[in-house]
Amino acid sequence: MQVLIWKQLSVRRRAAVLARPASAAQPDRAAVVARIFAAVRREGDAALRRFTRQFDGARLRSLQVTAAEFAAAERVLGRADHAALRTAWRNLRRFHRAQRPRPLRVTTTPGVVCEKVVRPIDRIGLYVPGGSAPLFSTALMLGVPSQLAGNPVRVLCTPPDRAGRINPWILCAAQLCGLTEVYKVGGAQAIAALACGTTSVPRCDKIFGPGNAFVTEAKLQASRAGTAIDLPAGPSEVMVVADDRARPDLVAADLLSQAEHGPDSQVLLVAYSVRFASRVQAELARQLAVLPRRAIAQRALAGSRLLVASGAEAAVAIANAYAPEHLILQVADPRALLAGVTAAGSVFLGAWTPESLGDYASGTNHVLPTAGWARAISGLGLADFHRTMTVQEASPRGLQRLGPVVERLARAENLAAHQRAVRVRLHLLSR
Amino acid sequence: MQVLIWKQLSVRRRAAVLARPASAAQPDRAAVVARIFAAVRREGDAALRRFTRQFDGARLRSLQVTAAEFAAAERVLGRADHAALRTAWRNLRRFHRAQRPRPLRVTTTPGVVCEKVVRPIDRIGLYVPGGSAPLFSTALMLGVPSQLAGNPVRVLCTPPDRAGRINPWILCAAQLCGLTEVYKVGGAQAIAALACGTTSVPRCDKIFGPGNAFVTEAKLQASRAGTAIDLPAGPSEVMVVADDRARPDLVAADLLSQAEHGPDSQVLLVAYSVRFASRVQAELARQLAVLPRRAIAQRALAGSRLLVASGAEAAVAIANAYAPEHLILQVADPRALLAGVTAAGSVFLGAWTPESLGDYASGTNHVLPTAGWARAISGLGLADFHRTMTVQEASPRGLQRLGPVVERLARAENLAAHQRAVRVRLHLLSR
Repeated sequence: MQVLIWKQLSVRRRAAVLARPASAAQPDRAAVVARIFAAVRREGDAALRRFTRQFDGARLRSLQVTAAEFAAAERVLGRADHAALRTAWRNLRRFHRAQRPRPLRVTTTPGVVCEKVVRPIDRIGLYVPGGSAPLFSTALMLGVPSQLAGNPVRVLCTPPDRAGRINPWILCAAQLCGLTEVYKVGGAQAIAALACGTTSVPRCDKIFGPGNAFVTEAKLQASRAGTAIDLPAGPSEVMVVADDRARPDLVAADLLSQAEHGPDSQVLLVAYSVRFASRVQAELARQLAVLPRRAIAQRALAGSRLLVASGAEAAVAIANAYAPEHLILQVADPRALLAGVTAAGSVFLGAWTPESLGDYASGTNHVLPTAGWARAISGLGLADFHRTMTVQEASPRGLQRLGPVVERLARAENLAAHQRAVRVRLHLLSR
Repeated sequence: MQVLIWKQLSVRRRAAVLARPASAAQPDRAAVVARIFAAVRREGDAALRRFTRQFDGARLRSLQVTAAEFAAAERVLGRADHAALRTAWRNLRRFHRAQRPRPLRVTTTPGVVCEKVVRPIDRIGLYVPGGSAPLFSTALMLGVPSQLAGNPVRVLCTPPDRAGRINPWILCAAQLCGLTEVYKVGGAQAIAALACGTTSVPRCDKIFGPGNAFVTEAKLQASRAGTAIDLPAGPSEVMVVADDRARPDLVAADLLSQAEHGPDSQVLLVAYSVRFASRVQAELARQLAVLPRRAIAQRALAGSRLLVASGAEAAVAIANAYAPEHLILQVADPRALLAGVTAAGSVFLGAWTPESLGDYASGTNHVLPTAGWARAISGLGLADFHRTMTVQEASPRGLQRLGPVVERLARAENLAAHQRAVRVRLHLLSR
């Protein structure tokens, strides 16, 4: 890991330094996923069972988690475990409840009322990855807003282990969120099931949740076929902006907590001096040595950057250009910097707010835009589980006022039937 | 056009009746668009000029509309034309201004504050189709919310005619919305320019606006490459629910105003009696005869449906199953029906609210979800021109309260560095 002084880099080099590594091109991934979709469409549950045997090594009779399995999971966790889950759930509820989309009513012209009304989406499908780390926190992040939205159908899919079991933490998180319909199916086949529907798994209107490259490809194919999806998922990222008064050990700890996610995690430091950056570098080496997932973290650090900016303004410009998923501001006055930040998924202010807080329990959602999507896309929120409809109602007087305007505009667009739909009404009213 | 009695249809037949016709499969469309992207990336403005010559028949020196061209356009429109545009613009402003996303601040745990902050997207690209009908109303629908959001870079692309000119109504609509940067480029090449950037056209973070199948394909490819897009566009649709007290002539006029959009427009009537449906059918034939765009409307009507439901409840169920872009409720108590409607783009209440009102000037946005996307996606609104970031800040006391919970959850997910980022801080605080 090299310390790079931003001022000394050419424009081209700067762009390269902030570029995300291109994901390994796998032209056959799309074809593999398309075949999985076709099989799930054709054979339904039988295909899900076959893929689960093939990819997860589990032979399942029933795909759905039973009440007995939920009860057993609850007994596995201790009292303090349940309390911790409940605290995270409660904070998520508090922050998401405040996001409830507002209905709206505006009189735009006397006699013409426009409204926005809000409805929960009917059927939502949630996906929680399994694998090396059972991410039950993701079950909370998806489960809480769907519980608050009150979507009539709420389904969770997650892959089983070789013995056909779901991690008990995931089941307890699901239960807290009132998710009683949980299916033991993962990967692209889970997304195909949620998009197409099978005898067991209901077809959904929108699919949420992160996953590996096959899951992401499956979500794109689902979206092309008419099922909505949440946001494009990619490798996780953190950028830490730290001034010279920050503690290098805390900065290094935050960088490492991102690096352990996976070898493709992105980790960037923006320091205000070479000296501070070098101290962080030394801390990284020291702390890495004691991490259980150090092999993963080391690979992530190999692709990471330690940048030196000439001050707060330059640091904010770098952050906005990169648009990180997570942005940690360990500086003397983080709120002053925040005012200039325009593109980030979630921002962590000050020395006492590590990213882990937001990953689990502060109340913010950890499903966030990666890969620079923060330039245009927001992290998951309660509104994503609703849709809004606009409504308008004109009184006879309202139509008489606004109708002639509409007639003129429709004529200018050569849309005579649009004009006519107004004119026949105005004729009726003028009789 | 046949009158179909819903009660008498099998489940399979019902699904077929409400299914959108599959869009003509064009496997080479994706390849054509990919080649256009590659050319624009490689050659920039030169490629834009070449494609504009090839597809629009116009030889352009400068791609950007000049101040003189804006001034000339303004002189073409009459005083009443300008007033009509301004009324539409004003109503759109009134309704969209009320949608301004709220910032948010919640204390979730004593000492832990979570926030949502709102930022306009930096660079947005707007696309307005040209072709047979110059849809300046779309320029207003995209321009007004971007003007209210105050996006720092706002660009509009629209194809020129063979003489290299842009329709004066489009330029006047753009000017009303403060859109001074307008480029004479259309089709997939316009989307490629907005996604990749050229010497003339700035690269944008998000692209908005409808278009033909090539434009839609180009937006999908832009989205795969990292540029956000608004919503998937498809052929326009209307469903009219009408009880026996509605006027068949008004219902027919509304159906025709949709049918004239294009031969693939979707037009559905849900009546409460065969007798009423037949009267609408007769009106359609009568009114069709006098329409200038009757060839188009006739082809759209050929694929349309006249359904007879057994009453209000059944009608609402049909509407929700179809999830129309536009839903017109010409019934005695439209608000009673609205309460049950969960999936539609925009709803028009009562006899005096033709769809044309919302297409131009009521104040609602006419960029709406088609093809059943209304089940999960909302029409365009002010929020789509912003992104939100979440923010959290813990005090030492806040971290001491919430930290142990986060430690326990991180450990359960086998993420030791996440746990450690909290623990090193708690150690510091306990000294």
